[in-house]
Amino acid sequence: MSEANDLSKLAVHTATNKPWTLRECVDAYAGAGIGGISVWRNVLEPVGAEEGGRMIRDAGLAVPALVRGGFFPATDAETRQWAIDENKRCVDEASAIGAEMVVLVVGAVPGMPLEEGRRQVADGIAAVLPHAAEAGVKLAIEPLHPMYADDKSCVNRMTEARAICEQIGSSWVGIAVDVYHVWWDPELEAEIARAGDGGHLFGFHVCDWRTPTRRLLTDRELMGEGCIDIPRIRRAVEGAGFAGFREVEIFSEDYWAMDQNAYLERIVQAYREHV
Amino acid sequence: MSEANDLSKLAVHTATNKPWTLRECVDAYAGAGIGGISVWRNVLEPVGAEEGGRMIRDAGLAVPALVRGGFFPATDAETRQWAIDENKRCVDEASAIGAEMVVLVVGAVPGMPLEEGRRQVADGIAAVLPHAAEAGVKLAIEPLHPMYADDKSCVNRMTEARAICEQIGSSWVGIAVDVYHVWWDPELEAEIARAGDGGHLFGFHVCDWRTPTRRLLTDRELMGEGCIDIPRIRRAVEGAGFAGFREVEIFSEDYWAMDQNAYLERIVQAYREHV
Repeated sequence: MSEANDLSKLAVHTATNKPWTLRECVDAYAGAGIGGISVWRNVLEPVGAEEGGRMIRDAGLAVPALVRGGFFPATDAETRQWAIDENKRCVDEASAIGAEMVVLVVGAVPGMPLEEGRRQVADGIAAVLPHAAEAGVKLAIEPLHPMYADDKSCVNRMTEARAICEQIGSSWVGIAVDVYHVWWDPELEAEIARAGDGGHLFGFHVCDWRTPTRRLLTDRELMGEGCIDIPRIRRAVEGAGFAGFREVEIFSEDYWAMDQNAYLERIVQAYREHV
Repeated sequence: MSEANDLSKLAVHTATNKPWTLRECVDAYAGAGIGGISVWRNVLEPVGAEEGGRMIRDAGLAVPALVRGGFFPATDAETRQWAIDENKRCVDEASAIGAEMVVLVVGAVPGMPLEEGRRQVADGIAAVLPHAAEAGVKLAIEPLHPMYADDKSCVNRMTEARAICEQIGSSWVGIAVDVYHVWWDPELEAEIARAGDGGHLFGFHVCDWRTPTRRLLTDRELMGEGCIDIPRIRRAVEGAGFAGFREVEIFSEDYWAMDQNAYLERIVQAYREHV
């Protein structure tokens, strides 16, 4: 099945097909010959991690990532501890579904200095790390675009993600590179090389940047429909030693409104032509 | 007039009070004891630069900036030359109204590598520079937030703005620091110090970042209503030797819908308390 082989490194995030249940995602992705599924917690919750894991294994899909943990910074210790506990539960779910990593959207508190946020993120990850290592689940920091620096992520470049990885110094802590968030960074390729040298490249997410972008959260584009040179970034991460899945993660009200089977065909085509 | 003195370093961009004509802006700012006005070309066009300049001088307002030039990158030489000519016209208008600088939103072409865009920006500025120096008008590169990297600006950090300044090496080419665009940058304070050392700090723009931000272009906040630590950045630029105006530049559909006199009172109050 040469065509199926072409898709062996393709994974799709369930949030890409938001209208679908986990069952519908699993059936559609497996039916299309897609190699992997990255699972968002909202679709796992209705069936539970055990049943969800069985469903995915039975379909023969790999699971690069459970999405998402993180959101560590808070102004009080109780909330920070709650976040650490919640991330441990996330790790347990990841383990149950056989996910390689938990993707961390690290969090931010409006008005808290970003460097203080990053200190709390490093502390939070360090607190979750023993549990993750024991479970055999990696923790992947996803640098988020600077337009999310107010309340979603105080890590907005590869540079700061790598600094936290190096500070913690564990093979269980690395980076998920999402082209949407980092494509504009003049230091991107140098930082990818450094992250690769350190063994920190855990994930690679693709979509595209729409011009004009009409909504900050839900206006991502299919690969090839925007301005990001995705193959250039893919070559950089693979040149730096990354050999994992190419995960399609698109939040788009327009595409969510489409027939999701037709949309999945477009995703597969865009993956073949523009990743 | 101690109160008026307090506002001697305050300037307001006409785009902040978008519903107003230049006449209305001039009268209101001068009436409030505000020291300066930064003029957008759209309000200058109906009256012309000569008449606009007279109006501003008669009211005793200083003019830190004419906004905006730039948009240098293009895929063909003819369009690039058009941009250079247009920037020279911009310089002429700035000279006519006594503006200290032209603010450059440097431009970007979706799909053009950002480093190629920056090469074209440097070339464009270099081509306009002799005309600007002769007119005694500074050219201020404004780094724009990375969410505008697709089609508005290939210069998204102080670092790349400074690199262009240093490459050109003229006392007529510097940087306009707008807190909205650069507040998230982990290297901001170090870069402000470097820019100050090089004599490249030309302008300082303030507003605030709203949480949640609902629109990419027109959802800026009044100082103090968002997450940016403006006094910290002001201290950094002034500590690096900047002694110019603090320019209020707010694009906001909400505030534009307000009574503009009441809004201006809020601007003055926010300036006193949060800049």
